[in-house]
Amino acid sequence: MPTQFDPPSGTRDFLAAEYEKREWAFGELRSIFRSYGFEPLQTPSFERIGILLGKYGDEADKLVFKILRRGEHEASGEADLALRYDMTVPLARVAAAYGSQLPTPYKRYAIGPVWRADRPGRGRFREFTQCDVDTLGSGSLLADAEVLCVHHDAMVRLGLRDFKILLNARQVLFGLLEVFSVPAELGDSVLISLDKLDKLSPAAVIDELTGRGLSAETATELVGAMTAPDATDRIRTMLKGSDTGMAGLDQVDAVLNLAGGQIPAERIAFTPRMVRGLSYYTGPIWELAASGVPGSIGSGGRYDGLIAQLGGPDLPGTGTSIGIERVLMLLPDDVAGVRGRIDVAVPVLDADLAAQSFGLAAVAREAGLRASVYLGSSGKLGKQLKWASDSGARWCLIYGPAEQAAGSVTVRDLASAEQGAVAIGELESHLRAAASSRNA
Amino acid sequence: MPTQFDPPSGTRDFLAAEYEKREWAFGELRSIFRSYGFEPLQTPSFERIGILLGKYGDEADKLVFKILRRGEHEASGEADLALRYDMTVPLARVAAAYGSQLPTPYKRYAIGPVWRADRPGRGRFREFTQCDVDTLGSGSLLADAEVLCVHHDAMVRLGLRDFKILLNARQVLFGLLEVFSVPAELGDSVLISLDKLDKLSPAAVIDELTGRGLSAETATELVGAMTAPDATDRIRTMLKGSDTGMAGLDQVDAVLNLAGGQIPAERIAFTPRMVRGLSYYTGPIWELAASGVPGSIGSGGRYDGLIAQLGGPDLPGTGTSIGIERVLMLLPDDVAGVRGRIDVAVPVLDADLAAQSFGLAAVAREAGLRASVYLGSSGKLGKQLKWASDSGARWCLIYGPAEQAAGSVTVRDLASAEQGAVAIGELESHLRAAASSRNA
Repeated sequence: MPTQFDPPSGTRDFLAAEYEKREWAFGELRSIFRSYGFEPLQTPSFERIGILLGKYGDEADKLVFKILRRGEHEASGEADLALRYDMTVPLARVAAAYGSQLPTPYKRYAIGPVWRADRPGRGRFREFTQCDVDTLGSGSLLADAEVLCVHHDAMVRLGLRDFKILLNARQVLFGLLEVFSVPAELGDSVLISLDKLDKLSPAAVIDELTGRGLSAETATELVGAMTAPDATDRIRTMLKGSDTGMAGLDQVDAVLNLAGGQIPAERIAFTPRMVRGLSYYTGPIWELAASGVPGSIGSGGRYDGLIAQLGGPDLPGTGTSIGIERVLMLLPDDVAGVRGRIDVAVPVLDADLAAQSFGLAAVAREAGLRASVYLGSSGKLGKQLKWASDSGARWCLIYGPAEQAAGSVTVRDLASAEQGAVAIGELESHLRAAASSRNA
Repeated sequence: MPTQFDPPSGTRDFLAAEYEKREWAFGELRSIFRSYGFEPLQTPSFERIGILLGKYGDEADKLVFKILRRGEHEASGEADLALRYDMTVPLARVAAAYGSQLPTPYKRYAIGPVWRADRPGRGRFREFTQCDVDTLGSGSLLADAEVLCVHHDAMVRLGLRDFKILLNARQVLFGLLEVFSVPAELGDSVLISLDKLDKLSPAAVIDELTGRGLSAETATELVGAMTAPDATDRIRTMLKGSDTGMAGLDQVDAVLNLAGGQIPAERIAFTPRMVRGLSYYTGPIWELAASGVPGSIGSGGRYDGLIAQLGGPDLPGTGTSIGIERVLMLLPDDVAGVRGRIDVAVPVLDADLAAQSFGLAAVAREAGLRASVYLGSSGKLGKQLKWASDSGARWCLIYGPAEQAAGSVTVRDLASAEQGAVAIGELESHLRAAASSRNA
């Protein structure tokens, strides 16, 4: 039951554990991206509405969150700004705005929220993080292979092992249409239907193809070739009948060759039936699949005309998009390795000694540990020890009149319930030693 | 001149250098917050409009960015969501929503963008990062002293040295109003005028006070006491005439005593003329000032009634807000220490050897360095070396037919222009050694 205090539909509050997991993942991703020489870009959360609308068609435009004009214009009911729908439209704007100030090629990554007014569902949010890695300004297949390797390495860094990269090229698909003599006007819709072969049965796709106007014979042959156990070999042979198809195969083989040193062979395969739905791709295309996860956990490809089409300069481009929300769902909850809220708890047993307790927590922080004094109102040690253990603390620093008189502090190990006196001057080194033996 | 490709008014694109600086600062802040046992919270960028509006008065409501309803409701021109205006309203909602799932006290930090439709100006943005540290559920002055120490340590961690914490308490101000017999109905407006003593001349403030209805004599005495060279001592003496004032002084002294072990005396001072403008503060209040910066670079205080007033549970609260956008302006541009885009550049001199060049970049990454192959179309070494140096690379790995025959790679140090052959199998350790001698 949603209550008035829930976050808006399709959005989430990230409390500590989830936040730490996400930040850990984003940090690992940044480190991989940076190791390949990709640089960060962060654009505003909203754009002028004219920059966003009309770029991806009417269906996408309906999903854009629009911001009402302000002040005297609010009553007009008109919008002048809109929340970012993806990372590519802002990239095109930035390429247009900064032009020669950007390096050539411009290798950039972007990690941040995007907003879509989709119907919320399991794993589908209205505010979610998108994570894109793109290279603008290089037509080389090295650039495609590079972003693909970045994507692969990023998955491995996050701990994923059981995933597969399906690799194809648009020209392979165009070649197939040619080989099967698919009428030009049916080409796009036939590709859209073939794209469903990972979800629908071959028979259902054949039905759809014939419904679109393809002859039953061609539809059956085409789907048969795409789904045969030896589909790859069959299609390699067939494509010899098409120059376009051969060019596509060359792209696929070049990317497999370049990436082969870094991506184990069992994780990448030429997959002729893989048809990315988006018509803006112009070269190699890929999709990542993880076992047990429906749909993809990431995808990408070359899109040489897109940046110009989105209002940017006419630059070739290639990029990959990590489906980080889905990937996060595959990771264990404790992957970030954050244990408890604090390492060291400092009770305050005597108001007159509060400043000293406060100082002891500072000493623990100097030793590299997370530490907090007790901020509640109970003066009872038992209650304060319960707080210490609820906070996940490993050690408790007890300082009362007896300790004050002795110039020491009682260090209690909450794991073993052992405790002993440590001279104040030796506390920092004592805690450092204790911490490193815990971590060993 | 703004162009059609500029980001919307009052927002910014963060290209690599600025992004790295910001991420570095946020990382340092998170590390300080965590060391005190504060945990992160991230709420959605927008809230239901009823959660946001009517919480801070009509003026603030005008600055809220409202999101138009979608689908069939879009034509109504009505808004149902609004972009986050601050971090405190969402905190109140989270405290109400998660209640007992949150630790007691709830010590949380939040770093993220907020949006205000203010008139943009130097250092004033419509999308800017807010950085708040708050403790809910503790009435102890230890909690106030703790967030203040967090704030202090955070500034020091970011490299600030020349700043000052102005400390006061609301009860000190109420005590002064009492001592000067300011009529109750004038109290709030008199405090608002006194708050301007850091910007206006004493005479101007006296004018304003008499305009508000205070007698010229009282106004002159009050401003005289607040601005005298020995104002602090004078006011300490005067406050003996008021129980409220004495209670305020006790709060100030307790915080000074608790924080004294960590905040050097020259960085913190009881400042009776410091009046935080916001009427929701109920205890100690503070403001941070840096030399050469008009206004404050951060502020905070205790706000025991606010969370309930904002729709949350009735919990005492205290917190501090780091004016991170202003602080960032004070930091050197290269504070994050990121040098160039890559460390190692790998030219591609021969298309047939591209896969090997690609693999050499991977070896450099294994050695912990940032590395990229050349993605351009020129086959000329000179052009590729220019790209290497433009990218900020220190080393270039040259691999052509001669190197292939010898099983080695030519490693060129772009700083010294020296180069030598390194066996492929020894490249990783060679680069590790070179990198550690560069960093030494």
